[in-house]
Amino acid sequence: MMSVAQGTQDLLLAEAAQDLLFREARTANTFSDEPVSEERIQAIYDLVKWAPTSMNVQPLRVLLVRSPEGRERLLKHMSEGNRAKTAAAPLTAILAADVDFHEHLPTQFPHVPNAKDFFTDEEGRIETARFNALLQVGYFVLGVRAAGLAAGPMSGFDADGVNQEFFPDGRKKSLLVVNIGNPGENAWFARSPRLAYEQVVETV
Amino acid sequence: MMSVAQGTQDLLLAEAAQDLLFREARTANTFSDEPVSEERIQAIYDLVKWAPTSMNVQPLRVLLVRSPEGRERLLKHMSEGNRAKTAAAPLTAILAADVDFHEHLPTQFPHVPNAKDFFTDEEGRIETARFNALLQVGYFVLGVRAAGLAAGPMSGFDADGVNQEFFPDGRKKSLLVVNIGNPGENAWFARSPRLAYEQVVETV
Repeated sequence: MMSVAQGTQDLLLAEAAQDLLFREARTANTFSDEPVSEERIQAIYDLVKWAPTSMNVQPLRVLLVRSPEGRERLLKHMSEGNRAKTAAAPLTAILAADVDFHEHLPTQFPHVPNAKDFFTDEEGRIETARFNALLQVGYFVLGVRAAGLAAGPMSGFDADGVNQEFFPDGRKKSLLVVNIGNPGENAWFARSPRLAYEQVVETV
Repeated sequence: MMSVAQGTQDLLLAEAAQDLLFREARTANTFSDEPVSEERIQAIYDLVKWAPTSMNVQPLRVLLVRSPEGRERLLKHMSEGNRAKTAAAPLTAILAADVDFHEHLPTQFPHVPNAKDFFTDEEGRIETARFNALLQVGYFVLGVRAAGLAAGPMSGFDADGVNQEFFPDGRKKSLLVVNIGNPGENAWFARSPRLAYEQVVETV
């Protein structure tokens, strides 16, 4: 039932791509041993970097946890229910917001030469960083799927602990931890339902 | 130069889909008069609803501003630079977070019957609503592109004003306003650069 999309004819995106990114993609809870290459992550980034952020701020930063030492440092901050699957994933990414994203604006938003000065207030800057990095987190998760890989996004971890462990200078704030790889055995939970259009969309 | 993707062979998503969603899609600043049907928006929602949120919370709510009266009510809260293009767009969506998303959890996260009780604290609930709705905003913007339409996302508006105008009961918090349609004349600004992989991704 799920694969017969309502209104597919109203979309330009090919049905196989719709399935790959949305309808058949699922959050993975186990992974195979197959490694995930650096080239694969670079291909994902070089695709999703084009999706929009306000004033091109691009605050998303990615820390790939690949070494056994790095993984040990991360595991102790994961909530218990996320620990075993994170220990077993071939690659785990910590997605974070760079609070000092504005330092890049002279090159990244060149047609407004003083754009950097809009962000002198740190509190507002943290909010802008978080807001736009979360949009980019959404893009990144779909990018992992675009690579034919499974993502296992997790918000169950001690964010302060992860920040102190990996970002001690305070410049980056962790948002989400994502396991990345090929799905293993029994990778999927039963799919939860989604809200109907009428529950989500209204018109004035 | 832009269309020759680095590492395209590392992605499973077809190149035309990569272009449609990411590489060739652009934020539109003018729109043609061609209307955007309700069916089109429903097709977008029925696609992007499958993308993940933590505990399937799905807090995103969409208010489509279609009537001249609705548009007048919105325009006065847009920042000056966004007013003319919002006045001229065939359809504008106010994307918001439902602070009371947890009321749907008994049906949306059925394998944890008491999931709703995890969100009795309103401050934490607002944070969860905002966090996950922003991921969904990212999915939605890509969904507009999947429909072959152009999106013009705008964060330049008075969020408190929009909330009081359209969501006076306080249950929904506006996040982003998005013009939706077919691009008009001179729709695109020059494309701003993107941060290089090495500026964004590190490995431990």
